[in-house]
Amino acid sequence: MPHKTVIVGGGAGGLGAAGGVKAANPEAEVVVYTEFEDVAYSPCGIPYVHGKEISDFEKLFLATKEQYVKAGIDVHYETTVTAIDPKGKTVTVEGEGRVSYDTLILATGFDYADPGVPGGDLENLYYVKNIRKAMEWDKVLDSVKTAVVIEASPLGTEMTTSLAHRGIETHLVDPNPWPLAEMADPDIMAPVEESWTEMGVKAHFNTTLKGFLGQGKVSAVDTSDGEIPCDLVVVATHKVPNARLAADAGLKIGSTGGIIVDERMATSAPGVFAVGDCTEIPHGLTRVPLQGLTGSHAYAQGKAGGNNAGGGSRTYKAVYVPWGTPAGKWVIGGASFGETTATALGIPYVVGQAQGISRARYYPGVKPVKVKLLAEPGSLRLIGAQMVGQEGIKERADFLAMAVKFGFTFHDLAAMENVYSPAIGALNEPIVVAATNGLDELRKAGKL
Amino acid sequence: MPHKTVIVGGGAGGLGAAGGVKAANPEAEVVVYTEFEDVAYSPCGIPYVHGKEISDFEKLFLATKEQYVKAGIDVHYETTVTAIDPKGKTVTVEGEGRVSYDTLILATGFDYADPGVPGGDLENLYYVKNIRKAMEWDKVLDSVKTAVVIEASPLGTEMTTSLAHRGIETHLVDPNPWPLAEMADPDIMAPVEESWTEMGVKAHFNTTLKGFLGQGKVSAVDTSDGEIPCDLVVVATHKVPNARLAADAGLKIGSTGGIIVDERMATSAPGVFAVGDCTEIPHGLTRVPLQGLTGSHAYAQGKAGGNNAGGGSRTYKAVYVPWGTPAGKWVIGGASFGETTATALGIPYVVGQAQGISRARYYPGVKPVKVKLLAEPGSLRLIGAQMVGQEGIKERADFLAMAVKFGFTFHDLAAMENVYSPAIGALNEPIVVAATNGLDELRKAGKL
Ligand SMILES: Cc1cc2nc3c(=O)[nH]c(=O)nc-3n(C[C@H](O)[C@H](O)[C@H](O)COP(=O)(O)OP(=O)(O)OC[C@H]3O[C@@H](n4cnc5c(N)ncnc54)[C@H](O)[C@@H]3O)c2cc1C
Ligand SMILES: Cc1cc2nc3c(=O)[nH]c(=O)nc-3n(C[C@H](O)[C@H](O)[C@H](O)COP(=O)(O)OP(=O)(O)OC[C@H]3O[C@@H](n4cnc5c(N)ncnc54)[C@H](O)[C@@H]3O)c2cc1C
Repeated sequence: MPHKTVIVGGGAGGLGAAGGVKAANPEAEVVVYTEFEDVAYSPCGIPYVHGKEISDFEKLFLATKEQYVKAGIDVHYETTVTAIDPKGKTVTVEGEGRVSYDTLILATGFDYADPGVPGGDLENLYYVKNIRKAMEWDKVLDSVKTAVVIEASPLGTEMTTSLAHRGIETHLVDPNPWPLAEMADPDIMAPVEESWTEMGVKAHFNTTLKGFLGQGKVSAVDTSDGEIPCDLVVVATHKVPNARLAADAGLKIGSTGGIIVDERMATSAPGVFAVGDCTEIPHGLTRVPLQGLTGSHAYAQGKAGGNNAGGGSRTYKAVYVPWGTPAGKWVIGGASFGETTATALGIPYVVGQAQGISRARYYPGVKPVKVKLLAEPGSLRLIGAQMVGQEGIKERADFLAMAVKFGFTFHDLAAMENVYSPAIGALNEPIVVAATNGLDELRKAGKL
Repeated sequence: MPHKTVIVGGGAGGLGAAGGVKAANPEAEVVVYTEFEDVAYSPCGIPYVHGKEISDFEKLFLATKEQYVKAGIDVHYETTVTAIDPKGKTVTVEGEGRVSYDTLILATGFDYADPGVPGGDLENLYYVKNIRKAMEWDKVLDSVKTAVVIEASPLGTEMTTSLAHRGIETHLVDPNPWPLAEMADPDIMAPVEESWTEMGVKAHFNTTLKGFLGQGKVSAVDTSDGEIPCDLVVVATHKVPNARLAADAGLKIGSTGGIIVDERMATSAPGVFAVGDCTEIPHGLTRVPLQGLTGSHAYAQGKAGGNNAGGGSRTYKAVYVPWGTPAGKWVIGGASFGETTATALGIPYVVGQAQGISRARYYPGVKPVKVKLLAEPGSLRLIGAQMVGQEGIKERADFLAMAVKFGFTFHDLAAMENVYSPAIGALNEPIVVAATNGLDELRKAGKL
């Protein structure tokens, strides 16, 4: 049967969705709209090209425009959708008028939160997102001596590290007492802060942004800590869902501002799905809705939602949020939440932690790995984990998210077998030691 | 109450046990006997010193003799126990006579299987184990031009890689059609074989050892493939349990030749425990007893058995055997078993596999990661996994062993969230892709 799916958005969510529709129904007509000049590039690589860890932007493109044509995915570039009409099953497209669909997928992604201070219209305020713009900004960076990064968000953390790595004097301004305070605990971030200092970063925590100063071009950032002269500002405020089209059409929006979806990624409007950063998804343990997840989540949601929009049947469930990123000279990561979030949510927990190593103590390249595990008192089921180290953080984060999801206890993790091979792993796996230490603490306290 | 535990063996099992006794009962008298000059060194590092990845042997020592004295662990070096008497609660010690104990722990480890061919008494046949001997052999290696490694066992695989890395012309002789055939599948080993060829290794598979030739010193190895002239032979035959003391005393010995123990690591004789490579432990899925596990298993068994011998209460359960090691220019690993073993045991399975990557496709240092998952038909519960790649193999192997233990299905693994951060992980986690591919195959075959 003829079937047409319209997708608004060409990011990880939108392209995952396009693939999902085609997987369920290879005959389906799939039209993707994006405001950008490209799809199928990795925005996640941009900070690393700026930091010169990656040599050039061309490397970030995943597929050519022809490959999409071949795959039967009709991408309309630099084309804005201005409204959706779920009743009439149409979208209004700039330059195309009303376009009809059988199923619609919203993958409109995120915006950086408006800093909400004077001077927002000055030049040299850089919002990192579009790759063509990033290519232009990269040339600007060549003449930048001092930059200010606004907020130690995940992107702010990456950009601070990258700009410092590039040799730019970098200031980081954040209202919280430590970086990434909304997800990571202070003990996890302490080594990162130290390494930033070694790299010449000037961190301004507990510092409120008051405005951007300058004539035409930004020349300083005004903060509660005083003025910081600079040539460029990276505005890495936290992400907010771009759910405007959905809200205007009366779709249900959640408490975070994200579009509410069910396990099929279906919105409150029949035939309309939403995927990626424009949605909100419940946390697996707390059921608290989360917005602003990652590109990896957006892609997976896209595949599930796309499949359903194409007539298939896939579910996407609550999330346990493994995360990880390089930060300063370290790699940080975790799953679910840490102590700060647990405390803020009023969730009681016990802790097991260990300072371990990534290879045999004597093997060249061995690095420290700190693991902190949070468990529910009594049951000792894992409810969260945080780490700082180097090698193997991403793989451990993936595992620990599954451990939270499947309710592994400190006992399960303390009894876990592990590979010991000098070049790749230590006699004692840090996760096992952390769980064992957690049990020992409880025993000493007479609670086990 | 006064309590004395005697431990026979100063390897990973014996020292884990000494710590376990002290943890349960800090007042206990702990006496350790070892035939060697040292305890508390890592034999696992020896191949890498020979290969010059690690600069010197001193690095492999973990603790000084004084530290054991301080910890109240009385180690008798170069001292052989010649018999045990579980009824009389004594051991017979060379040079000390009968020594009594309250509890006894056997941690006598493994021997390399006797190659069982003529010429076994020639010089320059190297059995890698004792660190003092390894230090002497390392000097010999300086003048070795050609070496032959007997058997592509885990140690043989490491030694082949190390000797080639050191620049020695290395021959590998093995009766099976591919290396590590008892644990790894041929598709996993194919890249390893290729990389060995690049490193100048001459592999002789399907080749039977017939004898060692020479006058006083070995000068050639005689095989079904002809004579291989050489200056040195590394005898890396598979491990066999060293259970002689136990067998002589009438303790129950299992089908593999290992001492039979229960979940407390208790043997058939009251008050006598056994830990490490002298025991056999059931596989968690098949219940088939396994011998010759790893140093990591020996250490964990030691801690459990030692704790029980000291009056505590710990269990050590059936194993799911995560494993991993560098091999040639690759890292291989897995959990539970692969296709070869499953087929040999008559265990039906379905496969999901993927050729993935370790970082973003465009990030410097990205490496391929092949993941192969085996699941039980119908339930699709994971029963084994094998991998070849570089980064993150050890962490994935640890995770996959837990996935087997806890019965994760292809569905669970396909729905797994994963960290995407260009420098540390790809958009698609290879384990997730392997499980997804497995499901797709089943769907195509109409079996899902
Ligand atoms: C610099 C940077 C680094 C990142 N690093 C990582 C990382 O390391 N790991 C990770 O997992 N994720 C990373 N991300 C991903 C990111 O955080 C998001 O999670 C991800 O981009 C969400 O994907 P999405 O498809 O939902 O939305 P977006 O990527 O925001 O895409 C939205 C799309 O919708 C289009 N659009 C919006 N409104 C309209 C309209 N009205 N009409 C037409 N088109 C419209 C846009 O043109 C765009 O194509 C990074 C992103 C950036 C920008
Ligand atoms: C070269 C090499 C590389 C290895 N690499 C790895 C690796 O990468 N990863 C890993 O996990 N494991 C590795 N191992 C560990 C190994 O494979 C075993 O699993 C481990 O050594 C078993 O420990 P164990 O304490 O049970 O026995 P063993 O290490 O064999 O120790 C046996 C001890 O018993 C003593 N003993 C035996 N009989 C008597 C007696 N009659 N009287 C007194 N003392 C006695 C010996 O002196 C010795 O101290 C390696 C081992 C070697 C030798």
